[in-house]
Amino acid sequence: MPLGERGGWDKSESRYCGVETDFNDDMPNLLSFNLSTAGFDFLLATLMDPTYRPSLMGSDSNGAHVLPFAGSDLVLSPSQWSSHVVGKISSWIDLDSEDEILRMDSETTLKQEIAWATHLSLQACLLPSPKGASCANYARCVNQILQGLNSMQLWLRIPLEKTDDDSVDSDQTIDSWELWNSFRHLCEHHSQLSVALNVLSSLPSANSLGRWFGEPVRAALINTDSFLTNARGYPCLSRRHQKLITGFFNHSIQIVISGKSVHSLPGASSDSAANHTGNNVDNAQRPPLRPYLDYVAYLYQRMDPLPEQERFEHGYRDFLQSPLQPLMDNLEAQTYETFEKDSVKYIQYQRAISKALLDRVPDEEASSLTTVLMVVGAGRGPLVRASLQAAEETGRKLKVYAVEKNPNAVVTLHSLVKLESWENIVTIVSCDMRHWEAPEKADILVSELLGSFGDNELSPECLDGAQRFLKQDGISIPSSYTSFIQPVTASKLYNDVKSHKDLVHFETAYVVKLHSVAKLAPSQPVFTFTHPNFSRKKSNQRYKKLRFEIPSDTGSAIVHGFAGYFDAILYKDVHLGIEPSTATPNMFSWFAIFFPLRTPVCIRPGSSIEVHFWRCCGSSKVWYEWCVASPCPSPIHNSNGRSYWVGL
Amino acid sequence: MPLGERGGWDKSESRYCGVETDFNDDMPNLLSFNLSTAGFDFLLATLMDPTYRPSLMGSDSNGAHVLPFAGSDLVLSPSQWSSHVVGKISSWIDLDSEDEILRMDSETTLKQEIAWATHLSLQACLLPSPKGASCANYARCVNQILQGLNSMQLWLRIPLEKTDDDSVDSDQTIDSWELWNSFRHLCEHHSQLSVALNVLSSLPSANSLGRWFGEPVRAALINTDSFLTNARGYPCLSRRHQKLITGFFNHSIQIVISGKSVHSLPGASSDSAANHTGNNVDNAQRPPLRPYLDYVAYLYQRMDPLPEQERFEHGYRDFLQSPLQPLMDNLEAQTYETFEKDSVKYIQYQRAISKALLDRVPDEEASSLTTVLMVVGAGRGPLVRASLQAAEETGRKLKVYAVEKNPNAVVTLHSLVKLESWENIVTIVSCDMRHWEAPEKADILVSELLGSFGDNELSPECLDGAQRFLKQDGISIPSSYTSFIQPVTASKLYNDVKSHKDLVHFETAYVVKLHSVAKLAPSQPVFTFTHPNFSRKKSNQRYKKLRFEIPSDTGSAIVHGFAGYFDAILYKDVHLGIEPSTATPNMFSWFAIFFPLRTPVCIRPGSSIEVHFWRCCGSSKVWYEWCVASPCPSPIHNSNGRSYWVGL
Repeated sequence: MPLGERGGWDKSESRYCGVETDFNDDMPNLLSFNLSTAGFDFLLATLMDPTYRPSLMGSDSNGAHVLPFAGSDLVLSPSQWSSHVVGKISSWIDLDSEDEILRMDSETTLKQEIAWATHLSLQACLLPSPKGASCANYARCVNQILQGLNSMQLWLRIPLEKTDDDSVDSDQTIDSWELWNSFRHLCEHHSQLSVALNVLSSLPSANSLGRWFGEPVRAALINTDSFLTNARGYPCLSRRHQKLITGFFNHSIQIVISGKSVHSLPGASSDSAANHTGNNVDNAQRPPLRPYLDYVAYLYQRMDPLPEQERFEHGYRDFLQSPLQPLMDNLEAQTYETFEKDSVKYIQYQRAISKALLDRVPDEEASSLTTVLMVVGAGRGPLVRASLQAAEETGRKLKVYAVEKNPNAVVTLHSLVKLESWENIVTIVSCDMRHWEAPEKADILVSELLGSFGDNELSPECLDGAQRFLKQDGISIPSSYTSFIQPVTASKLYNDVKSHKDLVHFETAYVVKLHSVAKLAPSQPVFTFTHPNFSRKKSNQRYKKLRFEIPSDTGSAIVHGFAGYFDAILYKDVHLGIEPSTATPNMFSWFAIFFPLRTPVCIRPGSSIEVHFWRCCGSSKVWYEWCVASPCPSPIHNSNGRSYWVGL
Repeated sequence: MPLGERGGWDKSESRYCGVETDFNDDMPNLLSFNLSTAGFDFLLATLMDPTYRPSLMGSDSNGAHVLPFAGSDLVLSPSQWSSHVVGKISSWIDLDSEDEILRMDSETTLKQEIAWATHLSLQACLLPSPKGASCANYARCVNQILQGLNSMQLWLRIPLEKTDDDSVDSDQTIDSWELWNSFRHLCEHHSQLSVALNVLSSLPSANSLGRWFGEPVRAALINTDSFLTNARGYPCLSRRHQKLITGFFNHSIQIVISGKSVHSLPGASSDSAANHTGNNVDNAQRPPLRPYLDYVAYLYQRMDPLPEQERFEHGYRDFLQSPLQPLMDNLEAQTYETFEKDSVKYIQYQRAISKALLDRVPDEEASSLTTVLMVVGAGRGPLVRASLQAAEETGRKLKVYAVEKNPNAVVTLHSLVKLESWENIVTIVSCDMRHWEAPEKADILVSELLGSFGDNELSPECLDGAQRFLKQDGISIPSSYTSFIQPVTASKLYNDVKSHKDLVHFETAYVVKLHSVAKLAPSQPVFTFTHPNFSRKKSNQRYKKLRFEIPSDTGSAIVHGFAGYFDAILYKDVHLGIEPSTATPNMFSWFAIFFPLRTPVCIRPGSSIEVHFWRCCGSSKVWYEWCVASPCPSPIHNSNGRSYWVGL
């Protein structure tokens, strides 16, 4: 049964908890004991007798011998096989052994077991961890299997920390993430190849662990050895382990309990579940792994509920969207509707406008002086409303022009003005701000033309046009904005981009609610624009070179691309943005932006990545180009905006 | 005028020698003096006044000012411009300067000059060397230009050795090849971007220099400073320089003399060319750079003529061909014709057969014992002839079966046997050797089923079939064969593969006469097959892991793929093969094979590359898979033979 309920929205796989079992040829009993009696949701079960070796079979027949499978497919129903059993490939296989016979036996066995698991329609099989530091032949064989696989997932077991006794040469410590990285590169980032992390009692550094959240981890096998014992004798986990498990839950990673019970529990249990006795194996004993499951369920149920914003954004996680082109295209009503709901954003604007009004008009002139405020890109009116509320709040007199190029939004604006009786204060102008001939100049120019990357919806070009009708000492709200990037591991996003099999998608920036992403270094500023800018020789072209140092305790890392953000200074100390370290809380108008790399870049431990970003301007479009210069130069992406641009 | 003639076959660009000139606004005179008077074939001429800076131009006009070009396009005829002038882009430009104005000026100037050169239909422009270690912005700008360029080539000037005074930070020595490598990666290996090497007085190590022969080097600028003075006061070059220049000639690289004359020559010259006085500049002086040109021409004319084999293969240099599939397809008469001309190959076979006959039949039984020899894959009969000649040479009695599956070749075989009156000795069998039921068993099995990579035309599978009718103590000629590979830099081949814009071509091996290739490490053996092989459990699957150490004085390197070869032991000490260190001289039946990499791999100085190769066998095909495991893992190429295979 699932670990718990976190509201109807949580359909996450991580509600299900599995158990790793030894080979047992009585599969029905194994299933019934672990599911009905012990309460697990699925088994991680060995499919073939561990003593089987193809080379030991009689070589007389032409493959007429029967393989040593645990009974026939008929011992369970098809739905039992596919819903409750994950196949565990024989752990003795070693395709990179020096011993050729072992290598051949391993390849034969692996292919036979996968074929059998496919026959049973299992959803996934667990591949044993590569034995040494080298895994090319194993990967070659798995890659061949992946080419023709049905929908089954292959989970490669990777120990979170490669312990001494795993390694033949104890001097050589292996970063197990590197093992995974090699394996998946060899298998070309295949989307059906994922990771089952093996959690042991010791944990690597937080930065090292963090890398896994950008990887396709499907399961975490938690060894009973890694549990501590609480005062009442029950298993529990260290704080660091608890935090990690919670991280797994948040990333739809299923927990699997692995190993033998190492906690001898008090005879009587207060847990009512202990009384569930079913069709038990071994003299109706209490399921020995039940206390571990109970503890995992406790951790699951103890999690804080998701805040409202996260719940709203849940369905968008790691889903790539094309950025809006509000200048070329007219937004639809539904889009306005969504953005207008973001009250936090308008509160910030109102605060900024209030401060500007107070600075502009001293108290003694409040009743005599009328401030001319122009909202450029007024949409359906939210910034007009915020301006009028700021005027009311500060007791300043206002004359508002609402300039909007989308004729459909202008219809709504007119009805709003009528409904609110603003006819004497607000003038509606149905015109592109770049071409409007204003009847007078403005004291304050209010706009919200920002994209996820700040200038990517062409706010600079629009405001260059609009500042013609701003007084020389006038104020622009926002007064400046800056874009930011940081390098990320993002297997899911990379695979989604790659699935299009073309260059264009690798040279496009996407709006995306980042979730399964490892942020490898703090973000750094890229381009800044300040308004108004009356300088003669100004240009909206930009060029920035950045170097990101990856913390040395991260170990090696892979960069699939760059997460982009912005921060805008609306007026003086009032800002608004999505850059993670300074993000405005509870604002949902902007997701991050993602700039992919055509070829993921591998970074060695303690080293850095040098990145170049350009903002280029042509006569009819604006675009970005980007590249990696170090450790290995990449091609320059999106040359001349051939794949992705924003139309002027 | 060209440097000389090396027979009608030599249409190489390297016959032409150019001269680098300073800015001169009298282009007609500059051309006439350097070509008609001094004897050069083309100019490397600055197109724009070196004092021009866009930012210093009046900012009042909207670009209405005239650019400071050296006269109009009318000063020369279109064919003079395109045949005799290579444009030299202003050398002051620095797109990676910290100074933003200089950067902007540089970009503007570069784009203006390229546009002007395009207008003139110049064949090439010389881009100045990047100023520092960083070149990303320069590369971005050049890459943008390349996207829309006509057929013009851009030659990036690269000093062979980055001297101290070039570098701002003298502690930081820059390997100039790395500069080129970054630049071309950023420009995505664009085929119109090539290198003009600047040769100075000191030269890096031979291994370091060797890298350039795998790169698209179009010109070598030789500074007058790098010339020595001979006993008669004339300029000459060091032995190492001479060898380098000869290498350039052999790779169609044009020489350009650069710099001022630094040799004060004796008044009278014995060289008749010194008497050519034309329409001279500067009071009809003797052209000061003429002695340098004469010396280069002397080096050109002094070169050894190409051996016959090289001349035969000249037209195939670096031209990718699909390997033959002689098992699936029947060869055409023309193909037989070509291969039968390779007398060296048949001499080796005859030697091997003679030795085998002598071992098989002692002198005292020579007249009584008849050896049964079967030629499997007899084609049109050259190995039958070699066998009969061996019998004659050794005085042994022979009975020959000529087995051939191609019915068209069998027609020719019949007529050959009739013509030569071999009817009593030779039996022709029109059958696939894998299915023939022989009437008796053979003492000697002779075959030539080898591809460039040894087993790649399925010799192992064919001989496995044929050895059914070989006596247990019988001899197979060849008795074994081994494939070899080595990592290479091969820009031309990589670009040719890339031009297909699909995965299939990157996962195919090609037969190719390797020429513009840098061999980065000695070749190593891959797969070996020995015949006959009567073992029960034999398999023709193979797996090999290889590590190549790149010599540390090479510096960094790029690997575009692997060159493959074979060596076959025909019998005892008689071998035959194309592995470079042991290649059979004057044999032309096989070119090398080339296994490309989807993404070129960069190797740091003094480090190594680990490669894995597999030979995989299915029921209807045989194929190779390959990958790089270190320094960075590549995808496994050609999984399941999806792109390239040999049909059984």
